[in-house]
Amino acid sequence: MGEFELIQRYFAAAPCAQGGDGVVGGIGDDCALLALPPGEQLAVSTDTLVAGVHFPSVCDPFLLGQRALAVAASDLAAMGAMPMAFTLALTLDQADAAWLEAFASGLQHMAAACALALVGGDTTRGPLSLTLTVFGRVPVAQALTRAGARVGDLLCVGGALGDAAGALPLVLGQREAAAEIAAPLLARYWSPMPQLALGQALRGQATAALDISDGLLADCGHIAKASHVALQVEAQRIPQSAALRALAGQEGALSCALSGGDDYRLLFTLPPERLSGIQADWPDVRVIGQVVAGHGVHLLDAAGQAIDVPQRGYQHF
Amino acid sequence: MGEFELIQRYFAAAPCAQGGDGVVGGIGDDCALLALPPGEQLAVSTDTLVAGVHFPSVCDPFLLGQRALAVAASDLAAMGAMPMAFTLALTLDQADAAWLEAFASGLQHMAAACALALVGGDTTRGPLSLTLTVFGRVPVAQALTRAGARVGDLLCVGGALGDAAGALPLVLGQREAAAEIAAPLLARYWSPMPQLALGQALRGQATAALDISDGLLADCGHIAKASHVALQVEAQRIPQSAALRALAGQEGALSCALSGGDDYRLLFTLPPERLSGIQADWPDVRVIGQVVAGHGVHLLDAAGQAIDVPQRGYQHF
Repeated sequence: MGEFELIQRYFAAAPCAQGGDGVVGGIGDDCALLALPPGEQLAVSTDTLVAGVHFPSVCDPFLLGQRALAVAASDLAAMGAMPMAFTLALTLDQADAAWLEAFASGLQHMAAACALALVGGDTTRGPLSLTLTVFGRVPVAQALTRAGARVGDLLCVGGALGDAAGALPLVLGQREAAAEIAAPLLARYWSPMPQLALGQALRGQATAALDISDGLLADCGHIAKASHVALQVEAQRIPQSAALRALAGQEGALSCALSGGDDYRLLFTLPPERLSGIQADWPDVRVIGQVVAGHGVHLLDAAGQAIDVPQRGYQHF
Repeated sequence: MGEFELIQRYFAAAPCAQGGDGVVGGIGDDCALLALPPGEQLAVSTDTLVAGVHFPSVCDPFLLGQRALAVAASDLAAMGAMPMAFTLALTLDQADAAWLEAFASGLQHMAAACALALVGGDTTRGPLSLTLTVFGRVPVAQALTRAGARVGDLLCVGGALGDAAGALPLVLGQREAAAEIAAPLLARYWSPMPQLALGQALRGQATAALDISDGLLADCGHIAKASHVALQVEAQRIPQSAALRALAGQEGALSCALSGGDDYRLLFTLPPERLSGIQADWPDVRVIGQVVAGHGVHLLDAAGQAIDVPQRGYQHF
């Protein structure tokens, strides 16, 4: 099958490739064309997933399509951006029709959930990997960044952490678990829903934000560094799911939540007076610490004593 | 070396990563932020280059950096877009300092030549490949597309074709040639200069345009299909360099020019009365045929007789 027929059959024909808000030109020309309303800017993020590194080489292509787009779209959530469009660069070692159909279907499913239109990309031959570039729009000067955290702000997360890291032994087939434990953890690994609505609600509220991909402590480090502050994280306040605790035990669950990565929950700093307003609409939001003067990230136990940080976030090299 | 230090050392510190026209936020947050002037739209294109498929696994990293960005930026030229920014998704099997330094330097060289700012990306571990996404801006409704060719238009190219395809045996070390033959061909392979200024000059002039990447005949087919016309290509009018003819002979040079791909010259259709104005500023522009009613691409010899098309353009699968 030629590259063009392949793109046409599985991607250009998908509902998400039929245009969307701000999409002036999509698949089929040298460039896609996007229009922005006056007073808005474009937010752009690129993420690569490599087989055998970011996902198992042999996996369900529907789930892979879902996850790849979710991971990319989470960066739009982190900026408070409204989703618009994405491009897909897909490198495949072979053009297998069943695989492509399932992959495109998973991609389509997440595209619909996130209101993202597929506007272009590239299909190439080689070791399986995916690079997605996502586009969102955000009112001028209202994007959430990592740089605005202020001493006295609360440190908050958008929901339970560690599930995706806890699911990894299940994903890799190294471990089994009862369905009621495995299912919610695997769902968090394979289809982490980007917190797009929460991100938009945090515009003008949160002073700094990101999405947790490298692991809570590593990502706290990014906010601390960009904002020139220190972050105190209270270990016992970090929300963890019952399924994760059942699978990994209390200590294992904490380790997953602190350093596991792949959470794709928002981490943000918030002036204390704004907490109740946010929690009214987002009951899963939890305070896990606070912003203090200094630098770095400090993990505290229930008594407020410093705990040695068990390990760093995921490092590629 | 950690991913963050690696990005900081070789990419974030590069001159092209220090911002540019319309770049509100670059490397270091979850998304880059781009601003568009009123009345303009964003043009976006994504290209992947895989080691062993699109370039030799062992090659000069400076040249690779240069070529990767040139190939991507050529799509902006094809739309008549003004270059703004790009993201780089780089997958590496190891973080080798000398390799990265040379690669980043080649990338920087082409970024400066094209006025493109590096605004973000992703660095991952895996088999060597690169995905670049380029951003340009273009006045509303003025982008060049593949769809506007009209019967009676001239078919034109931006310069000599086939050099990159002719260079391939030299690139792969399968053949040697005297420096005066090898040097210009290798330059066309490793640093094809995107015809950005020509593309912008063609806005409001050309009725359809693209950049030749798949090979002249295959790319003619894209314009013919999108514009619902037929294209006649006169074989003897296709410009070819003296170096290509010296290396490949007359027949080999024609084959490279027709089907070789990787030219990254603009191919466009132009009402006849506009030709002299364009050629006055762009003397390398050549008429190679015309737009007629019908469909498909027809290759003609000097007597106007149909020639069988030797082969199709490059197909990945």
